[in-house]
Amino acid sequence: MPKPIVTLTTDFGLSDHYVGTMKGVILGICPQAQIVDLSHEVAEFAIAEGAYVIAQAYRYFPKRTVHVVVVDPGVGSARRPIVAEAAGQFFVAPDNGVLGMIYAREKYRVRALTSDRYFLKPVSRTFHGRDIFAPTGAHLAAGANPARFGKRIDDFVQGDFAKPECSGDQTWNGRILRIDRFGNIVTNFLARDFPALAKGKFLLTAGPRRVSAMGHSYAEAKPGELFVIEGSGGYLEISLNQGSAARVTGCSAGDSVVLSFGPQ
Amino acid sequence: MPKPIVTLTTDFGLSDHYVGTMKGVILGICPQAQIVDLSHEVAEFAIAEGAYVIAQAYRYFPKRTVHVVVVDPGVGSARRPIVAEAAGQFFVAPDNGVLGMIYAREKYRVRALTSDRYFLKPVSRTFHGRDIFAPTGAHLAAGANPARFGKRIDDFVQGDFAKPECSGDQTWNGRILRIDRFGNIVTNFLARDFPALAKGKFLLTAGPRRVSAMGHSYAEAKPGELFVIEGSGGYLEISLNQGSAARVTGCSAGDSVVLSFGPQ
Amino acid sequence: MPKPIVTLTTDFGLSDHYVGTMKGVILGICPQAQIVDLSHEVAEFAIAEGAYVIAQAYRYFPKRTVHVVVVDPGVGSARRPIVAEAAGQFFVAPDNGVLGMIYAREKYRVRALTSDRYFLKPVSRTFHGRDIFAPTGAHLAAGANPARFGKRIDDFVQGDFAKPECSGDQTWNGRILRIDRFGNIVTNFLARDFPALAKGKFLLTAGPRRVSAMGHSYAEAKPGELFVIEGSGGYLEISLNQGSAARVTGCSAGDSVVLSFGPQ
Repeated sequence: MPKPIVTLTTDFGLSDHYVGTMKGVILGICPQAQIVDLSHEVAEFAIAEGAYVIAQAYRYFPKRTVHVVVVDPGVGSARRPIVAEAAGQFFVAPDNGVLGMIYAREKYRVRALTSDRYFLKPVSRTFHGRDIFAPTGAHLAAGANPARFGKRIDDFVQGDFAKPECSGDQTWNGRILRIDRFGNIVTNFLARDFPALAKGKFLLTAGPRRVSAMGHSYAEAKPGELFVIEGSGGYLEISLNQGSAARVTGCSAGDSVVLSFGPQ
Repeated sequence: MPKPIVTLTTDFGLSDHYVGTMKGVILGICPQAQIVDLSHEVAEFAIAEGAYVIAQAYRYFPKRTVHVVVVDPGVGSARRPIVAEAAGQFFVAPDNGVLGMIYAREKYRVRALTSDRYFLKPVSRTFHGRDIFAPTGAHLAAGANPARFGKRIDDFVQGDFAKPECSGDQTWNGRILRIDRFGNIVTNFLARDFPALAKGKFLLTAGPRRVSAMGHSYAEAKPGELFVIEGSGGYLEISLNQGSAARVTGCSAGDSVVLSFGPQ
Repeated sequence: MPKPIVTLTTDFGLSDHYVGTMKGVILGICPQAQIVDLSHEVAEFAIAEGAYVIAQAYRYFPKRTVHVVVVDPGVGSARRPIVAEAAGQFFVAPDNGVLGMIYAREKYRVRALTSDRYFLKPVSRTFHGRDIFAPTGAHLAAGANPARFGKRIDDFVQGDFAKPECSGDQTWNGRILRIDRFGNIVTNFLARDFPALAKGKFLLTAGPRRVSAMGHSYAEAKPGELFVIEGSGGYLEISLNQGSAARVTGCSAGDSVVLSFGPQ
């Protein structure tokens, strides 16, 4: 029997004890769990960034992996904790759209976590990562049936950051999902949705800059020249060979980008 | 048999090889160990911060967990390495007060690590995390009897940051234990020690700001208003909904705070 | 049977999903792997820094450990992926010199990874950590014979940062391998190569500062005085008790340093 895997994605950072405490709770409930950190450096309260991180990583994990995702500006409010089943895996999170990019890619089933039998009590008003999400994830990893956590719901929050919108003749408005560590600008344009890219006549506008060159690897690009590349997650990225495209364009996560085709 | 757990808390950061090297040493001695990082981002040499991190996290780990805590400005000097037993767990650390908040909460027994049989030799003068603390923790995790490491001592360093002091009629002087990633100001006032808080007539003074509102969750607070909340560790915190209370007040870890009750 | 260990050293940082994705790939192939992070905070594209981190840490890991090292400015170009066997362990990396300090210390055998049977397909042009290095490391951890990955080669890249050069009468030119978190300046002068240090008449020049005092521990040094110390890895370091030698001297990784002996 392989060990059950529990991944963690949060905006807690690594300087505080919060992540370590969640791991203690998980190992107390499911001692055989293999805990994997996806990222704890999601920007504070940045639901779209958390949604992007988990949506990029989950596909590379085995079936039955449990993903605990805590980017939760509404902790202590009426927002519900949920568990989603998708792609043969489990996702435990607040119902605020942080699983929106999973919903956009997979068939899924969502339950509200209403049975408090699996929570750590007393449940605090400020740290549901420790009191609700970690113990729920651990019980799932230990084999608990998701149906025991609560009833299925349909009115969960989808999030609105996943899909570009057509805004005119051969023109789409998108947004920046993420600036990665290297300064690559990750947009929400999935390359496979735009077959016209292969013809090479396109413009991708980000801040004050218009980019029309397509590259196939970072290393082959000319120094100092911005280019568009299909990133490892399938999204169009704006990049610079060994430089930061984000710094050059002044772009940030959440900013608008525009993709257009045809005679310019 | 569940795997033995070894947690690590240091001020080593994650950019250097120091933490990874300690993990290699631990796995060489105790291959079945499950290693859990609590935090490696304790500020350099900040004993009180390290004390706070370990004291918040240990309670959520199973019995027999071994906690290795290395915040050690005195490495290479005469300060002793120690192992404490408390709450059914083990704590391996330098004797500089970094376990002070454990001593304040639990019954404990402390031993000086005098038997060098368990050390990695030659013992360097600059990296006892690798040469003393990691191997001691690993041997404990592998089942070694703590009595074999050295004799019990009573003259260990307690640390002076754990407890507020009464400074007048219904007035207590405390200090800031930690600014967390979200800018919450964690004080050393344990809410349960101040039942008068329930009546709601209090003032908590931090830097130039006096806070008299009590909140129960971050999300219910008005934007821009500072409030006091019982944090997940039981301490009073000064917070701001989706903002940094530390930035607004200009406070830092170690600063004084004053709590007073009665007619203002 | 102890669990196979796979360590990771990258310049990917911890804010993105890259490292977590690699871990998912590894656990999918080798579920029993124990994954250990050495550092993901190697400066972007800084091959010499990555070389230093892995060379400091590997010696403390058990035989058969698999080290995956991804500092890879040439990803997508013609640079080869390789696996080296040295010290009874495995090292999977791009062929760009990042294993140079292993070659300098150990007997080794290097193979080019030419058999794509172990790769994750389709192999992207931008994320070989996920598609080539992680799966190769995982298959090695699961027991695959290294000979199946590709043929031995002799024309791999050695890197030029490992060794100081004699530049005159009792004078050596070296370089700064690393500034650590505490501001210690780690040079590439191995103390054991310079027995004349024991006599105490030396000058180590770093930026505008000349240091001639030898210390044996951080704690014994006078506040504010720069001193030279043999660091935990055996290299000469310039340090300051509870202060940053790097800030005081203005030095950075890669800068030149000069060591000289004799009458000054």
